[in-house]
Amino acid sequence: MRIGVVGLGKAFMLMLPTFLMDRRVQLVAASDTDPLSLRQFKADFPAAAVHGDIESLCKNPDVEVVYIGTPHQFHAVHAEIALNAGKHVLVEKPMAVTLEDCCRMNACAQRAGKYLIVGHSHSFDHPISRAKELIDSGRYGRVRFIHSMNYTDFLYRPRRAEELNTDLGGGVVFNQASHQLDVIRLLAQGRVVDVSSYLGRWDAARRTEGAYSALIKFDNGVAANVTYSGYAHYNSDEVMGWVNELGEKQPERRLFPTRLRLDEVLNKGSEAAYKNEMSYGRGWSAHGLPKMARNHQHFGHLVISCEGADIVPKAEKIEVFANGEYHCENFSMPDFPRQEVMDELFDAISGTRPPVHTGEWAMETLDLCIALLEGGKPELIGMRATAVACAGRSSGR
Amino acid sequence: MRIGVVGLGKAFMLMLPTFLMDRRVQLVAASDTDPLSLRQFKADFPAAAVHGDIESLCKNPDVEVVYIGTPHQFHAVHAEIALNAGKHVLVEKPMAVTLEDCCRMNACAQRAGKYLIVGHSHSFDHPISRAKELIDSGRYGRVRFIHSMNYTDFLYRPRRAEELNTDLGGGVVFNQASHQLDVIRLLAQGRVVDVSSYLGRWDAARRTEGAYSALIKFDNGVAANVTYSGYAHYNSDEVMGWVNELGEKQPERRLFPTRLRLDEVLNKGSEAAYKNEMSYGRGWSAHGLPKMARNHQHFGHLVISCEGADIVPKAEKIEVFANGEYHCENFSMPDFPRQEVMDELFDAISGTRPPVHTGEWAMETLDLCIALLEGGKPELIGMRATAVACAGRSSGR
Repeated sequence: MRIGVVGLGKAFMLMLPTFLMDRRVQLVAASDTDPLSLRQFKADFPAAAVHGDIESLCKNPDVEVVYIGTPHQFHAVHAEIALNAGKHVLVEKPMAVTLEDCCRMNACAQRAGKYLIVGHSHSFDHPISRAKELIDSGRYGRVRFIHSMNYTDFLYRPRRAEELNTDLGGGVVFNQASHQLDVIRLLAQGRVVDVSSYLGRWDAARRTEGAYSALIKFDNGVAANVTYSGYAHYNSDEVMGWVNELGEKQPERRLFPTRLRLDEVLNKGSEAAYKNEMSYGRGWSAHGLPKMARNHQHFGHLVISCEGADIVPKAEKIEVFANGEYHCENFSMPDFPRQEVMDELFDAISGTRPPVHTGEWAMETLDLCIALLEGGKPELIGMRATAVACAGRSSGR
Repeated sequence: MRIGVVGLGKAFMLMLPTFLMDRRVQLVAASDTDPLSLRQFKADFPAAAVHGDIESLCKNPDVEVVYIGTPHQFHAVHAEIALNAGKHVLVEKPMAVTLEDCCRMNACAQRAGKYLIVGHSHSFDHPISRAKELIDSGRYGRVRFIHSMNYTDFLYRPRRAEELNTDLGGGVVFNQASHQLDVIRLLAQGRVVDVSSYLGRWDAARRTEGAYSALIKFDNGVAANVTYSGYAHYNSDEVMGWVNELGEKQPERRLFPTRLRLDEVLNKGSEAAYKNEMSYGRGWSAHGLPKMARNHQHFGHLVISCEGADIVPKAEKIEVFANGEYHCENFSMPDFPRQEVMDELFDAISGTRPPVHTGEWAMETLDLCIALLEGGKPELIGMRATAVACAGRSSGR
């Protein structure tokens, strides 16, 4: 797959190990507004083209798939440009910040006859798809209840201003619930009919949601309870064998170092400048990537209760606690991180397997995120055909 | 304290180590409908009186406090008899099965000028009161969110029919939420203004709630998320250092043995008969009690998020994860289990310290349990004076 990268920021840096290690992938082009990042890209990938804007990248006939890792509020317009130019699109989550944007993106993909895939999200993770296989085997009866809990330092990692502004897609609901709810939806396999939510906004210096909790009910009787705190104290990796979200085995850490580091950064000057210093082309390059062996990625403690068993996926293994039967599968180390995303993209383009994480799928996850934020029901409830909702919306605009 | 025991069942058996080991306590009398249990009591406590009914026990001038461990639906009438006879009462949780019963019990206690204390519940546990002290110190800012999760084999322990009948006080809401919500209420220190709940009823052979999850909001802005499954698969003691609810260190158990044992019991005959065989005077006596050292008791994984720290109480220690500060207090082993209940009772009667777990307190916990069951708001919301609610109810009946 010949991939053109739009946006050489943090999302790209997290995908770079995958792009480098997957032999099916060639990075053939990039565009960014920052000349330093582009220069680094050219240094790391001498055969690739660099473009000053997405329009010219999309005119590049070498580009087969456009990977969009720009700030959330630009996903829609960038995806539209790429799709209209006849490219497949892999866009980071959250798909967009409004349902209107999602509608337009999906309509574009349909008109263009191209794939629009949204990810990486942790619902791609192998332990999750293995859990889904076990559920789908029917051996343990129907899923009844899912519990998911994750405590991290999310809010105290260095941030740009927009990342702390909910209207622009900041905060833990747009950024972390988009993982957690994607996982829950994949396992529950129903449509959401009811949501009750709590939003935590505890830090006057970082005025966005840093925590949430929700009780979610699906039309097939499944219920789920999701809790997330990004307020940087207790680390729930304690329950995950001290393997972190990226699959790295950690020492038994008592405290996240992030907040201390952030205090230092704030004392010295601007947080955004510090984040910028750590960016691709400054602190980072393709040669500076960690080489350590990694487990699968995860998104916190998860217990899937079926009628006949509890299924507990972790980074290193999946455990099944059933009636009189305990069953543990140890995973082998993945060849490289996020392989599942490339598999889904490759299989879609080659016609081997239809993708799961389509624009239609991701739009419903965004719908649920917005329902959490607004304390209301998802708007798309009961609408099997997203097109209906989209048509209504377009005419109303 | 000279205690008369009403009901020599499972609740009494769980309190017996406490009664035996607390030097302030003398068991001076007992009543039960089962002659075998009474005979055992006489054998274990030769100086004590045995009574065929509660009325005659309550006429016994030696009895200062009546401990009520009868089935839930009899708590109200038994407490009233004891209070009207001028005794202090310690009644097991849940206080009763209806709010009307609670009202009558509280009115009785008030008229009699005697203490009505409800417990044991896990909100008495030392790790919980230590967490409350840390919160009350103000050092970590306001409590914002509380997460509580417990996965046990509750539903598959041997049961009498009424224990599987919600109307008679059976199921996990009356029996286990009465622990979990008591803990949450004590730590949240507000009044409940909103509840969203899910009830799990997955086993056609045991038709009561075996699981629940709820999102609860308090008038002081605190929110809590509680999850409980008693469906006997995954064991959340994994997260509690393999210390069980009673404070006993366990081997790393993969499966609960209860369901297997239950299948055996059911194959051989009646579950109720089996449970009866294990009762006081048959399988048990004061001499058969385990002597092992125990940690404090607990009710599952609990994370209390304050503005400036997460506080995590466990059976052996309490951990504080704050901004740049990790703090762990290891508990010493308690002298005997549930000492906190006897402390509260003793201090109340001796006038040293007013009790926390009064009938008024416990009535609000029952109110919240009923709200969970009915998917509605608690009835007592906003009513500071329980008396007002009670008066309204009495006139309506």
